[in-house]
Amino acid sequence: MPLFTEHASSWRDLRVLPSLAPPLPRLAPAFVPSTESEIERYEVLIVGAGPAGLMLQLLLARYGLTDESLLCIDSKPSTLKSGQADGVQPRTLEVFKTLGISEEIEREACQMWEFAFWNQAENPGGSQTIQRQTVVPQVIPPARFPYEATIHQGRIERIMDQDLLRYSRRGVLRNTKLVSLRIDEQGDAEFPVLVEIEVDGVQRRTLRTKHLVGADGAHSVVRKAVGLNLEGQSLDHIWGVVDLVVDTDFPDIRRRCAIHSRAGSVMVIPRERICTGECITRIYVQVPGLVDPEGRVADADLGEGARGRRAQVTLAGILKQIETVFQPYYIRPKRDDAIDWWAAYQIGQRVCPEFIVKDATGVGRVFIVGDACHTHSPKAGQGMNVSMMDSYNLAWKLAYHVNGLTPSTSGNALLDTYHIERHANAQQLIDFDRKFATGFSDKVGTEDCKSGISHAEFVEIFSTGCEFTSGCGVEYVENLAVNRITPTKPVVSGHDYLSGMLRPGRRLLNVKMKRFADGAHRDIHDDLASTGRFRILSLLSVDLLDPNGVSATALQDVTGLVQQFPPSLLEQIVVYPELPGAISWASIPTCVKEHAEMAFYSGYAVDDAYGIYGVDPAQGALVVVRPDGYVGMVAPLSEVARVDGYFGGIMKRVA
Amino acid sequence: MPLFTEHASSWRDLRVLPSLAPPLPRLAPAFVPSTESEIERYEVLIVGAGPAGLMLQLLLARYGLTDESLLCIDSKPSTLKSGQADGVQPRTLEVFKTLGISEEIEREACQMWEFAFWNQAENPGGSQTIQRQTVVPQVIPPARFPYEATIHQGRIERIMDQDLLRYSRRGVLRNTKLVSLRIDEQGDAEFPVLVEIEVDGVQRRTLRTKHLVGADGAHSVVRKAVGLNLEGQSLDHIWGVVDLVVDTDFPDIRRRCAIHSRAGSVMVIPRERICTGECITRIYVQVPGLVDPEGRVADADLGEGARGRRAQVTLAGILKQIETVFQPYYIRPKRDDAIDWWAAYQIGQRVCPEFIVKDATGVGRVFIVGDACHTHSPKAGQGMNVSMMDSYNLAWKLAYHVNGLTPSTSGNALLDTYHIERHANAQQLIDFDRKFATGFSDKVGTEDCKSGISHAEFVEIFSTGCEFTSGCGVEYVENLAVNRITPTKPVVSGHDYLSGMLRPGRRLLNVKMKRFADGAHRDIHDDLASTGRFRILSLLSVDLLDPNGVSATALQDVTGLVQQFPPSLLEQIVVYPELPGAISWASIPTCVKEHAEMAFYSGYAVDDAYGIYGVDPAQGALVVVRPDGYVGMVAPLSEVARVDGYFGGIMKRVA
Repeated sequence: MPLFTEHASSWRDLRVLPSLAPPLPRLAPAFVPSTESEIERYEVLIVGAGPAGLMLQLLLARYGLTDESLLCIDSKPSTLKSGQADGVQPRTLEVFKTLGISEEIEREACQMWEFAFWNQAENPGGSQTIQRQTVVPQVIPPARFPYEATIHQGRIERIMDQDLLRYSRRGVLRNTKLVSLRIDEQGDAEFPVLVEIEVDGVQRRTLRTKHLVGADGAHSVVRKAVGLNLEGQSLDHIWGVVDLVVDTDFPDIRRRCAIHSRAGSVMVIPRERICTGECITRIYVQVPGLVDPEGRVADADLGEGARGRRAQVTLAGILKQIETVFQPYYIRPKRDDAIDWWAAYQIGQRVCPEFIVKDATGVGRVFIVGDACHTHSPKAGQGMNVSMMDSYNLAWKLAYHVNGLTPSTSGNALLDTYHIERHANAQQLIDFDRKFATGFSDKVGTEDCKSGISHAEFVEIFSTGCEFTSGCGVEYVENLAVNRITPTKPVVSGHDYLSGMLRPGRRLLNVKMKRFADGAHRDIHDDLASTGRFRILSLLSVDLLDPNGVSATALQDVTGLVQQFPPSLLEQIVVYPELPGAISWASIPTCVKEHAEMAFYSGYAVDDAYGIYGVDPAQGALVVVRPDGYVGMVAPLSEVARVDGYFGGIMKRVA
Repeated sequence: MPLFTEHASSWRDLRVLPSLAPPLPRLAPAFVPSTESEIERYEVLIVGAGPAGLMLQLLLARYGLTDESLLCIDSKPSTLKSGQADGVQPRTLEVFKTLGISEEIEREACQMWEFAFWNQAENPGGSQTIQRQTVVPQVIPPARFPYEATIHQGRIERIMDQDLLRYSRRGVLRNTKLVSLRIDEQGDAEFPVLVEIEVDGVQRRTLRTKHLVGADGAHSVVRKAVGLNLEGQSLDHIWGVVDLVVDTDFPDIRRRCAIHSRAGSVMVIPRERICTGECITRIYVQVPGLVDPEGRVADADLGEGARGRRAQVTLAGILKQIETVFQPYYIRPKRDDAIDWWAAYQIGQRVCPEFIVKDATGVGRVFIVGDACHTHSPKAGQGMNVSMMDSYNLAWKLAYHVNGLTPSTSGNALLDTYHIERHANAQQLIDFDRKFATGFSDKVGTEDCKSGISHAEFVEIFSTGCEFTSGCGVEYVENLAVNRITPTKPVVSGHDYLSGMLRPGRRLLNVKMKRFADGAHRDIHDDLASTGRFRILSLLSVDLLDPNGVSATALQDVTGLVQQFPPSLLEQIVVYPELPGAISWASIPTCVKEHAEMAFYSGYAVDDAYGIYGVDPAQGALVVVRPDGYVGMVAPLSEVARVDGYFGGIMKRVA
């Protein structure tokens, strides 16, 4: 349109840029960087920029920690030299979505929707070959993304690294090693973690930090420096793994497969399409030399002897074994250069008994996350996910602590919940993994099966395990931030938590709702952006139009509550049930429009939110959703005081 | 997992990067850049990097034109100084999705789902105020995105510019003006367009190019240089427009609204959320001074007189008029600095009679796109969209021409379809806009209404116009690339093209289907990436399992056909109907797995693709989908020769 007159504000031009997450408020005194003559000081130092370290740095940077206060070092020169994980679980995708970084994965990763189980079975002619027994969905619990994504780990790291650079000018300080680490409160009680690092293999620097996080993998230097060890039995099955482009007539090559054949077990993980237009396949295979001609696992496989043989694993051996297991189907590398990567590894499930090391006053000073505190088999596709979720759990707690948002009355209780929640989760992972890996390595469903697991039982292990492995069924134990105190009257009817019934300690399931203000259909997860804020989700009851009703009173009280805590830390989401007549802004409490205009939804026009969450529209409910998307507590609409009490344990009051 | 042995291919590390679109094949001799002593030479020069120019450059760069062959200049110093459009239509979002650049818009733009119509009406007490008459969906036809997005134009440009830099090191050459332009075949018949440009206001450079595209807006220098003019009547209504953060009790402020009051008309366009957390609102308003006290539009509004008054339009006047129209609701800027931008403009609908200027041999040398060839009112939110779609239409045709992919037998017929298709489309737009803008400026539904349009008729203009304005119902006229020759037997039953029935000249509607290879649910649009390729969509018939049936024969013939044309230019998508028994790779023609393994879908497991497309599963159909997502032709499965004939007119045969 041809214009005659035009006037623009000066800030209009800036709005071509993608928006940034708003930093958290800070009540602690501003951080004062060290002067040149002093020892370098930081508030948080992260060691290791794999998935766990990058996720932590990205979150802390988004929460407002600047390059002056936050440093992340990594010994490797770039994200390019990355690890071998490839699975991104549905819950991880949900988290990436709340960070606005899921799109490339959604678009370019392989989406695993189905899991096919193949067993040795008798053919009509009497011969035995592998045959397809069952195909089940890869993701069984309801989730925003009904698939597992598989893609090169380096790509996940690059995506986080790229987003990080919107918040941090420095990004990761690469080519930098941790040399030594100790807690030295005498030297400086506020910055008690004394650290020496080496940059580019030459420059040694001494630093002090308030907190240090070891995200430096299975061989963690941080863990060793603080005297912690991974504990647990190693089963020592030796496996080979290869990423390649295959040529095969095996019909399920684009599905995840568990193949149990006489000759051994194989797992197929379909992978992303590469620039040639071809898809990569990852294949895990039992190493052939360790299975004796009778098909039994040699005893030597379960002990020290195995370590001697691991170096004997060769690519040719792996490919030969794959060929044997897949018979009568042929399978081979598509070309001479079709092998992308291969490796051999031993399954070992271990967990560190402590995830936090405290100073003498009880403040958590050193934390470990990711492979540094738990290792397990890769077959359930957990490693990268659980590691990033460690950081997703720790980040907001650490930021609240550093920013002085936690109340002095509860000491360091919020920080401590990191160990409480994630250690129990790691132990669950290890237990599941041991069962799954055993079933996988074993001759399931044959007379040679040592564990006695039947095929149906193995599928069952996967299906129930799926709740856990998808990340969607994780349930944190009761603690300061997970309040399960029975309310005076029951709020949630039913226990099908996996299908969305509200349960403190589980993540809030995504539902689609219609927004009152504009009729837009929205995913509630899009109101749970990873900005470190808590949300109070008010599921109003049918008395909404009564100005003295429970709903109206709850809305007023919640609004009053929000104002007691640091500004912007509590956001409101309000949902209304089906009512006999229409509602209007004028007929409901004004605080809804004032504080939740763009987060006020019909709970019935799209999804049945009340039904899914197990809440009776006659009663309603108040739901606390933590910054990591987990339900912190559920209370009756009439008991805002309980919610107030919950927050009182976690946040300082400012009014 | 702890590894013992690890080997990676050298190219593995590169796969952390997002994938790039594969360049088109080239049959023309390689482009030889000019040496230093020669006049600079390009294959394509684009003038103007607004939405139309950027879209064109981005597409050509993705198709494989390098910085040496392709230059885009823009007189402005950056994308920051951008225009005032804000609407992104559903079809444009579909196109952005096929380019992998829709995510930021999906996430951060305002999504307009509903359109509210408000009119002057009598209250129970007898007084007259504006009242809500109707709320209709903003997007009525089925579309992948059921809303219109609104966001700052500069942001759209930045998103394209950012993606461009993955393909072009130079990007847009900014601060660079076109000085002169003429077609000079005597000087160099291969590079006949002779151009002078001025860089940074000082450096003059002379260039020659094979083709030049004027994307330089309503006051196009290119258009004037080739002696073309915009033609058509200007209605000369004067309007004000303001972007601001409002404080109001008007209940539909987050919906698109058309408000007809005694005091004049207003259109409300809800806009994106900004960093303060507040949402912007755009309001179009009839300029008050031009409405006399009786509420009639003064005659002076329709002629030269208006031009004199346009400079008198002030922000205060606009705000005052808005206040009046919204009564009894209050509306005001939320703060003193809540005004983002404001302007005054006149509605004028004009179109250029020619979009292409040819050389003496009939080859299109100068093209105009976007506002350079059509201008209209902003109220239907069309400008930016139609402009980008001009480029989306031209880009592949120009790339085919430049890369020597078009057959010499059909001359420049493919290039010529740009004018044929887009000129007719522009004319339609102008006609709709005139009707809509008239209804909008008029006192619809009152005795003062000059045009006699009733309220119901105005809503109807919007609703039927929506087919066109959403971009989803655009239908190109028959031409070389839109073949509607009646097949020997009817293939598509029904004429409800807007709901998805196949129709040459309309875009293929998105459907969701389940992929055979892996069970993934996919949008067919995700197989229509904007890479410049044609797709042959084979909707197989129920005789698929008969090796001599129509389906099997068609698959063989299509595979043979594909091999006659330049490599990679034709991609296959294959869909099968519900059959009595299960199918397997072994029971269907091997060419499906060979050529369409990851594009072979059940046409019934998710959406009913056959039903939506109007194809009888007993008969099946062959569908040509053009690189821009439009259906090029529909043929019976048995008539692969027809499809072969279609491609023969557009592409060179290589076998």
